[in-house]
Amino acid sequence: MAENTEYEALTPETLAKRLSGIKVLNEKVGENSDLWEVAEIGDGNLNLVFIISGKNGKAIVKQALPYVRLVGESWPLPLYRAFYEYNALERMAQRHPGSTPEIYYFDDTQAIIVMEYLDEHTILRQKLIAGEKVQGLAEFLGQFCARTAFRGSELSMQSANKKSDVALFSGNVEIPAITEALVFTDPYYEAEQNHHTKQLDRLISVLRRDVGLKIKVQKALQRFVSNSETMIHGDLHSGSIMCTDQTSRVIDPEFVQYGPMGFDVGMLCANFFMAYFSQPAHRQSGLEEYQEWILNIILEIFDVFNAEFRVLWANERRGLLYPPVLFEDQDHDAMAACEIVLKDIWSDAWTYCGIEMHRRCLSLAHNADFEEISNSVERASLEARNIEMGAHLIRSAGAFDNAAEVCEVARAHNRRDFL
Amino acid sequence: MAENTEYEALTPETLAKRLSGIKVLNEKVGENSDLWEVAEIGDGNLNLVFIISGKNGKAIVKQALPYVRLVGESWPLPLYRAFYEYNALERMAQRHPGSTPEIYYFDDTQAIIVMEYLDEHTILRQKLIAGEKVQGLAEFLGQFCARTAFRGSELSMQSANKKSDVALFSGNVEIPAITEALVFTDPYYEAEQNHHTKQLDRLISVLRRDVGLKIKVQKALQRFVSNSETMIHGDLHSGSIMCTDQTSRVIDPEFVQYGPMGFDVGMLCANFFMAYFSQPAHRQSGLEEYQEWILNIILEIFDVFNAEFRVLWANERRGLLYPPVLFEDQDHDAMAACEIVLKDIWSDAWTYCGIEMHRRCLSLAHNADFEEISNSVERASLEARNIEMGAHLIRSAGAFDNAAEVCEVARAHNRRDFL
Repeated sequence: MAENTEYEALTPETLAKRLSGIKVLNEKVGENSDLWEVAEIGDGNLNLVFIISGKNGKAIVKQALPYVRLVGESWPLPLYRAFYEYNALERMAQRHPGSTPEIYYFDDTQAIIVMEYLDEHTILRQKLIAGEKVQGLAEFLGQFCARTAFRGSELSMQSANKKSDVALFSGNVEIPAITEALVFTDPYYEAEQNHHTKQLDRLISVLRRDVGLKIKVQKALQRFVSNSETMIHGDLHSGSIMCTDQTSRVIDPEFVQYGPMGFDVGMLCANFFMAYFSQPAHRQSGLEEYQEWILNIILEIFDVFNAEFRVLWANERRGLLYPPVLFEDQDHDAMAACEIVLKDIWSDAWTYCGIEMHRRCLSLAHNADFEEISNSVERASLEARNIEMGAHLIRSAGAFDNAAEVCEVARAHNRRDFL
Repeated sequence: MAENTEYEALTPETLAKRLSGIKVLNEKVGENSDLWEVAEIGDGNLNLVFIISGKNGKAIVKQALPYVRLVGESWPLPLYRAFYEYNALERMAQRHPGSTPEIYYFDDTQAIIVMEYLDEHTILRQKLIAGEKVQGLAEFLGQFCARTAFRGSELSMQSANKKSDVALFSGNVEIPAITEALVFTDPYYEAEQNHHTKQLDRLISVLRRDVGLKIKVQKALQRFVSNSETMIHGDLHSGSIMCTDQTSRVIDPEFVQYGPMGFDVGMLCANFFMAYFSQPAHRQSGLEEYQEWILNIILEIFDVFNAEFRVLWANERRGLLYPPVLFEDQDHDAMAACEIVLKDIWSDAWTYCGIEMHRRCLSLAHNADFEEISNSVERASLEARNIEMGAHLIRSAGAFDNAAEVCEVARAHNRRDFL
């Protein structure tokens, strides 16, 4: 790609020629790039994504666009996000080996990441809408969230490495700014880009008049922007997870930043709750059983996260926080401290969970779980449960002792009619 | 100074020759550097400090040493701290004009800052030991803490500027590491460098067995290292404040970092409490009146901080947090949010206050308030009150509604015998 020193968006027609010289692609796809088949499959909001297929196999080419794809060139967005995504994928692969696609190649100028094609994997959100199950899903996600949270924090990292990493990712400004606006701010007033199901007008109007709730959300935003506890994925929804019926991977960490340890797992749970609440529109047969399967994923994520975090606490606490010299070396119980840290993480997590549930019905970027419900009356009634549950989580985040209590609240909301 | 490209420590003998070419010094001190009088006055733990006097006036030259002066060359410390101190002084001068000495000159390689000589100013700690009063002290300090806290946060700053500033100061690693060790960790176990008054053995042993307290301190450390709410001075004790009987300035922000908004004001209050508890050893006549004057400084700092913060909240909230579009524009009370933010700041502040009170009696760097008490029995009994008060603050930090309650607790401790 030496001939291209200026950024230029790839097309299915130009891709093979432009990437033909990349050695690892010759290995993974095929020697002769003339024989590569290229298809654009990007369905996200921000990027171009291509599959290249050849004699030897397949690869994914992801290229950032200099604007928000969902909105158009009127919303420019820096290409440097590919650099942060690449760096985030590298760190996630270290902190939870095998959790992300293998990276084959990175080109900073062209904002291109070439990576492993995940054979037979589909987006988790689609599976949840289709009523499909994934074995080991909760275990994978709970471990991913616990390991990245712990190993990216001063519980594990040396201070100098952590600080230089915080400095590095501080350069990712415009991408987290999308979250700051679309997730934390826009849902709570009539922002220009918002849209929502019309039947929710009254319910949303009441929500937006709840000053106490808005203050809690802004407090969560304050922690989001000025708490650098660990490196977070930043956008860990069910569209950022790809699965077969037995294996799972995390993709798309371009919203990476240092942030609160509870953010990723909270956003993740929100996406399971939205899958849960939207289910009545997607199936009749096996509805209750599948909804309970989803809730069980949340329960298990909670248990696995905590169990894994405790193991890491006992075995990998090599940072400056809660040092063994103050606890184990004095025959003092360090696990009591771990439980308090976990309690704080989950208090944050349920708050972020509630906020994510709101923004997907109130702000710009809705999700397919609800959007694919064509009957707006039905959609509104399910979204209403989701919005009310989100508000309950934000108001009571610190009061839950475990995920079972939260799931019980979800079941209660699932039975009610809020419109 | 073009001839010196390698760092070299200044001496009173070499200073005039080496700095003779600096134009602003010729203006401020005198044209002919042969006539400059130079005296080394550094009494701190880390640096060289010189006064240059000449026909036109005086100036201060501060130079970082490549090791901890208090300990010696066995504890190396990077010279780059002068760069961070310089940048911190610049920002403080913007955020609270007139609060710091004017900077005349900065040399990164030589780690030299040349600055305004503060005529007739002495270190606040010495004044407090001597029983001297400073008019307007609390107003100055309350405003300084409120303005730097607010104007260095996303309540005021634009996100991109804040993030690039966080990245800049993330390079200051070894200096905050001193705080992480000496303030938050060493006091709570028998660290090698610790020392304390012998009569406190039993009381300290009990303190160090309080696992719940240690967890609260580590939680405060977690916030200290991974909360970038605002740019903090990082070492705002009564040795970092210089006063005449009517004016005050803040100096020495080389411990600068982004950290919790309550850190500086909490450490500051700790130093007034230590002055308060140590008074009985420094005077008999007017003791009670002077102790009450000190408590009143804390009360007034609390009131001024809150009043100033509310004014800034109402008038300068131009960052992304608690945006007017969500509050004022909806006819929703934004001051309710301000009160919650203030409550959190003070909960942090009282915690940091208690920790600072501990470390000054338990860790490496004690303070003159207690150290100048030669009778160890008397010193121990006063330090005991201070240590117990510190523990009370750490345990109950979130429970205080105002500084009056905290001062009442201090009065109760001042009457008790803990040994």
